[in-house]
Amino acid sequence: MSTKMRAVVLHADWDPKPEFKLGPKDIEGRQTYLGSKVWRNPRVTIEERDVPQAGPGEVVIEVKACGICGSDVHMAQPDEQGYILYPGLTGFPAVLGHEFSGVIVDAGPGAFDKRTNKPFKGGEAVCAEEMLWCGACQPCADGWPNHCERLDELGFNVDGAMAKYIKVPARVVWSLEPLREHYSDEEVFLLGSLVEPTSVAYNAVIERSGWGILGGIRPGDNVVICGGGPIGIAACAILKRQGAAKVILSEPEPSRAELGRKMGADYTINPLQEDFTERVLEITHGYGAALYLEATGLPTIVYPQIEKTIWEQKTLNARVMVVARADAKMPVTGEVLQVRRAQIIGAQGHSGHGTFPRVIESMAAGMNMLPMITKQITLDEVPENLVTLRTDRKECKITVRLDKE
Amino acid sequence: MSTKMRAVVLHADWDPKPEFKLGPKDIEGRQTYLGSKVWRNPRVTIEERDVPQAGPGEVVIEVKACGICGSDVHMAQPDEQGYILYPGLTGFPAVLGHEFSGVIVDAGPGAFDKRTNKPFKGGEAVCAEEMLWCGACQPCADGWPNHCERLDELGFNVDGAMAKYIKVPARVVWSLEPLREHYSDEEVFLLGSLVEPTSVAYNAVIERSGWGILGGIRPGDNVVICGGGPIGIAACAILKRQGAAKVILSEPEPSRAELGRKMGADYTINPLQEDFTERVLEITHGYGAALYLEATGLPTIVYPQIEKTIWEQKTLNARVMVVARADAKMPVTGEVLQVRRAQIIGAQGHSGHGTFPRVIESMAAGMNMLPMITKQITLDEVPENLVTLRTDRKECKITVRLDKE
Amino acid sequence: MSTKMRAVVLHADWDPKPEFKLGPKDIEGRQTYLGSKVWRNPRVTIEERDVPQAGPGEVVIEVKACGICGSDVHMAQPDEQGYILYPGLTGFPAVLGHEFSGVIVDAGPGAFDKRTNKPFKGGEAVCAEEMLWCGACQPCADGWPNHCERLDELGFNVDGAMAKYIKVPARVVWSLEPLREHYSDEEVFLLGSLVEPTSVAYNAVIERSGWGILGGIRPGDNVVICGGGPIGIAACAILKRQGAAKVILSEPEPSRAELGRKMGADYTINPLQEDFTERVLEITHGYGAALYLEATGLPTIVYPQIEKTIWEQKTLNARVMVVARADAKMPVTGEVLQVRRAQIIGAQGHSGHGTFPRVIESMAAGMNMLPMITKQITLDEVPENLVTLRTDRKECKITVRLDKE
Amino acid sequence: MSTKMRAVVLHADWDPKPEFKLGPKDIEGRQTYLGSKVWRNPRVTIEERDVPQAGPGEVVIEVKACGICGSDVHMAQPDEQGYILYPGLTGFPAVLGHEFSGVIVDAGPGAFDKRTNKPFKGGEAVCAEEMLWCGACQPCADGWPNHCERLDELGFNVDGAMAKYIKVPARVVWSLEPLREHYSDEEVFLLGSLVEPTSVAYNAVIERSGWGILGGIRPGDNVVICGGGPIGIAACAILKRQGAAKVILSEPEPSRAELGRKMGADYTINPLQEDFTERVLEITHGYGAALYLEATGLPTIVYPQIEKTIWEQKTLNARVMVVARADAKMPVTGEVLQVRRAQIIGAQGHSGHGTFPRVIESMAAGMNMLPMITKQITLDEVPENLVTLRTDRKECKITVRLDKE
Repeated sequence: MSTKMRAVVLHADWDPKPEFKLGPKDIEGRQTYLGSKVWRNPRVTIEERDVPQAGPGEVVIEVKACGICGSDVHMAQPDEQGYILYPGLTGFPAVLGHEFSGVIVDAGPGAFDKRTNKPFKGGEAVCAEEMLWCGACQPCADGWPNHCERLDELGFNVDGAMAKYIKVPARVVWSLEPLREHYSDEEVFLLGSLVEPTSVAYNAVIERSGWGILGGIRPGDNVVICGGGPIGIAACAILKRQGAAKVILSEPEPSRAELGRKMGADYTINPLQEDFTERVLEITHGYGAALYLEATGLPTIVYPQIEKTIWEQKTLNARVMVVARADAKMPVTGEVLQVRRAQIIGAQGHSGHGTFPRVIESMAAGMNMLPMITKQITLDEVPENLVTLRTDRKECKITVRLDKE
Repeated sequence: MSTKMRAVVLHADWDPKPEFKLGPKDIEGRQTYLGSKVWRNPRVTIEERDVPQAGPGEVVIEVKACGICGSDVHMAQPDEQGYILYPGLTGFPAVLGHEFSGVIVDAGPGAFDKRTNKPFKGGEAVCAEEMLWCGACQPCADGWPNHCERLDELGFNVDGAMAKYIKVPARVVWSLEPLREHYSDEEVFLLGSLVEPTSVAYNAVIERSGWGILGGIRPGDNVVICGGGPIGIAACAILKRQGAAKVILSEPEPSRAELGRKMGADYTINPLQEDFTERVLEITHGYGAALYLEATGLPTIVYPQIEKTIWEQKTLNARVMVVARADAKMPVTGEVLQVRRAQIIGAQGHSGHGTFPRVIESMAAGMNMLPMITKQITLDEVPENLVTLRTDRKECKITVRLDKE
Repeated sequence: MSTKMRAVVLHADWDPKPEFKLGPKDIEGRQTYLGSKVWRNPRVTIEERDVPQAGPGEVVIEVKACGICGSDVHMAQPDEQGYILYPGLTGFPAVLGHEFSGVIVDAGPGAFDKRTNKPFKGGEAVCAEEMLWCGACQPCADGWPNHCERLDELGFNVDGAMAKYIKVPARVVWSLEPLREHYSDEEVFLLGSLVEPTSVAYNAVIERSGWGILGGIRPGDNVVICGGGPIGIAACAILKRQGAAKVILSEPEPSRAELGRKMGADYTINPLQEDFTERVLEITHGYGAALYLEATGLPTIVYPQIEKTIWEQKTLNARVMVVARADAKMPVTGEVLQVRRAQIIGAQGHSGHGTFPRVIESMAAGMNMLPMITKQITLDEVPENLVTLRTDRKECKITVRLDKE
Repeated sequence: MSTKMRAVVLHADWDPKPEFKLGPKDIEGRQTYLGSKVWRNPRVTIEERDVPQAGPGEVVIEVKACGICGSDVHMAQPDEQGYILYPGLTGFPAVLGHEFSGVIVDAGPGAFDKRTNKPFKGGEAVCAEEMLWCGACQPCADGWPNHCERLDELGFNVDGAMAKYIKVPARVVWSLEPLREHYSDEEVFLLGSLVEPTSVAYNAVIERSGWGILGGIRPGDNVVICGGGPIGIAACAILKRQGAAKVILSEPEPSRAELGRKMGADYTINPLQEDFTERVLEITHGYGAALYLEATGLPTIVYPQIEKTIWEQKTLNARVMVVARADAKMPVTGEVLQVRRAQIIGAQGHSGHGTFPRVIESMAAGMNMLPMITKQITLDEVPENLVTLRTDRKECKITVRLDKE
């Protein structure tokens, strides 16, 4: 194993806006919780880095595949004043990439495989959570790792996976071995790189709509997914798999709608050309849906349409799950929630609650997410693709093949 | 038993506004779902009525006590154009009154006592739900009687309890006999008249915040009640009883705040004079609350305060329960629901889910709601008190003593 | 419409065993809760009956298809002393049959279609619950109609569906119209006759393992079904549909195992030839299952096998759902429930909780239960088939085609 | 701070029974999961030990109070062949003691206070979980730390709290500062030593009977606690606090029954002198209970009584929570679980799920558990009291006052 490797690194300048104040987890010149208020002039480079070493409780993974996420694009994208678009936790320079799979090549003392409860042997196919929850703060101790108070994030403020190797704590690593029974080696690692985004969708539509070991819908319920990006598409697949009678995807972009149909949507609506409420009620014979997923990031447009549908539909107990991040104000009519016995819930993260292993087992059992990968590229092609994705709405997931390096 | 009785009757004129159209359950000249769009010139009279007879599955109850509800006031209150303020299901003329208790005096064939699963003997102390859910529509069959599609309402479109006798279907009648072990006869019936409003609060803070047999909070959680009207006050008592560490009532009117403290609030906030968020965080040492009840009817003012507190508090999983009816738009930031793992839920009604019997058992076990009754009156005093209550904010519950007639 | 019709009627003699005492719902010479203690010398005849008339809230259905249930067999089967085997509520003579579908031909005043909330027009394809829950006792009012204290049962103590026409209360009728989009007329009615047994399975594996609107499993969980009778087979289909990673059916009879595989089981175990625990752990790579359904009626044999598996498996939170009726004592080790965070739950009935409509929507969306019908017969063939089924273990569901009369 | 301290140390001889085999977490001569199969001739001594030092993520606590638990007694108690009675995880020699409170005197790098999310300052009043869940195995990552696959236990296989100082990972430490508002310094630490056993009861009756943020009962439900040991007594207090209408304690020992009444039981039953079922039904007017806690360790005697009561009671949905450890077989009738919609659940541990902080907040809000401490002793008196407790059934909790050394 060589001691050097090539990596996609994001650099930017620490240049806080006047109103910015260092917060409790911010580190002058190095890390902040409010990226878009601080970092300027992002540059993505391919450079040589030291291969990481596994410390206590850690493993080193040889990366096989790594997807590009919208947040990768936004970290590398300057606004008119040169500040990055991504608003959250960031610490640069950092190797990008957090939707990845690979094989274990090294394990530090105390690192073990959750699947076997034994030390890693080396060679195991794995993926990992992006969220490095601390395991010791009150939210972690109480069972809510997606809300860790001491979070680190792979590919954001900690070196990520767009490199030959990555080092992560073993506690966030999950075995992909169940996939081997049903998929080729290549498919195992491509699927493995989709576990993280699929888990974000699973956390929203299953965990957050339930409690503990329950969640999601009852077979025979209808669902509506607003937004055919990767999370919305994954939600179509998950909910069709959980027994939804009718999965309806609302998405104006034809190629995304088409992909949604391939992945589980029974019907698609073009909300720019059709009346959302009318169509949902027509398709469902007036019953409407039990679950609405807001995955567009445009809640001020989408929520009123959802609310109108809930008001007119026969189905009670509708849940509106908000998974796309947006700080806009949705206009919510309490009376609709009352009369229709409805609720609105926010969903964030992918960690904990048995989500990763269940997504992997679902894939192993036939939930084939591979059509989500619409383009495969090399490490060297990452910078240009990060630029392309600023405007492209046709690709679902672009995936870097590190096994091809 | 005499065949005539005195009753408080509300008359109004059927004079639909131009935009009004008869709906599927509306009956020309007799009944509508949209009261304030149809009924004009309300008049409350005391008049002589026939004593009702029990048909199949029905009972006749000799009324002992009946509370005045805000909706009674609004049904009898004209706006500037003479239309009644109450916007919902109404059919006039109707005897008013739906928060009542009394004793069984007659039972039709097939009417039986749910407590004993035997026919009534006569003389049982009882109260009744106000909502006459049909038991046969899909919401009823599915277990959601508060959302019955064929609802009748006592004292709204069916003759109510401000009379010597009232006739109701036995299926909505609940025994007050458990109260007899612990209270005097007079207290049994006064408490009995409080079961309905207490059940509205219980449905909101227990049933709607849970599922099936679970609900409400875990002992040690904090709660915040916004609004010290009867529902808010009852919620203080219920949640203190369910083990809330700190019950905080936000209410500007000093007499209501005082009553709240008597009924279970550990702290009160005057939101007109204090900073709501600051105070909640101060009282809870930064933890905030697990449950917020919006019981003011002013969600556009209250929700932003609640949202700000949830954003800043350490406690995750906060639920905002909206029980006060208002069709205003709350400005809801999805990101707050996401980051704080929070949700917003609407609550309506008091029927089903074992709510009435649990409220009665809680009262029997010491949840003494009697301080909520701040004034007792006779039948003849109802009309003037309906007027007083248009502006009065000091009284909590004014109760008609029919046993004093 | 003729006023006479042919019907399969069960007669037996009221001849109570010495220890039998009339209970509160028993009626001397007519009805008892303890069938096998009272009824002797069962005789099944085809005879002419009056066509029923719809009273208030009732409908008359022209029956199209009606399945034979194990309880039909046991009602008609004498033990060595001539007493019937069926131990429960029975009132003879009664027309048999409770798993049926048909079309509305008459509706009494106040009878309406739950799907449209409007009166029936006639001609609607429908099925009905077997349990005539009263809607007025405490369990019904609290939302637990499967535990109605005043239950009547179609085909047990009230005339059933093995006849040209049947009369039922509209509140237990469910529309089969959603099936018409996807199935032929003949299929609609055959599927319709399977809604009741499928709902028994759905109630067990979805409703009873959850609360309110949640239930069942999370996609990616494994499940084990013990027993390949109609309920076990239906459970395979439902749980596969809800996203089970691996559905394992334990069933010794090869033809039933085969049918299970066709209906959703990924693996079958022959518990007479293989080690149950070993096989479950092998198939699941040591993880075991999240849900075990006891559908054999032999809990003293099956439970210890399940318990051993739960003790050895990695998956926590296993639920053992007991749906087959048996009064034998299962030997339960509390420590296993503790260490493995497990629980045991009893399931009964099919009513309420939105079960019937969700089963119908699931069928409409592709959950094709038709392979469960392994034989179709005429009314005249019922008596001989009731005898055959005493010993036959090959047929899954024998269905009477009344549309062929 | 001196470098030496006195401690209560348990020694025993590693002398495995013939059938014993080293398991995966066992360490020859040092540690086993099956204590009673390995350890012989237990000796409790007071000896001098080095004061522990805080490593990374650890704190050192100066112990103020430490309760004696039944497992302490059983570890020190030989059977007829000299083997210890305690069957579980043990590694000797070990300092005993795991129900403790104290103040922070040292903190290693990375150790922080969950309450403030900041480093400890020193002097904070705290208590700690006994279970050192690893935070990295699958159960821990999935949110079930009570079922950690790599558990260590304070006072069992890791040095405990019957000493001047103890070292623990910061992640299991919980602040007692909320108690300071309402209790004296002495009370804070005595209450603090009761948090662990109270949390075992809370985990059983609240967490295990619910999901996530729900649990326990609804106000107005009745509960029955079988067994008046510390867990049963704590359960009386918790459930009374959660709004139980009637808390019934079944306990033959008069002094324990008396303590139960003081702590929240409304009624007590002597199951040796009274008919359990009859009394429960009498007290509850036939309704019975929603929750039964098996806290006696004699499930073969107690379960049939509970089952009979559930069979005869009117209340549906009863949950039987098994918290006392016993490997005996309970004879469970599935039909009772079916007809009464009941379930049986096993409960283990006290970690996770927000249990410790909620117990502390409940104590701060008035759940005063101090009467549970029926005797206070010094370190030197521990050995003799461990012997006394082998037979004594009068004391509830004997507490070592280390602040008196």
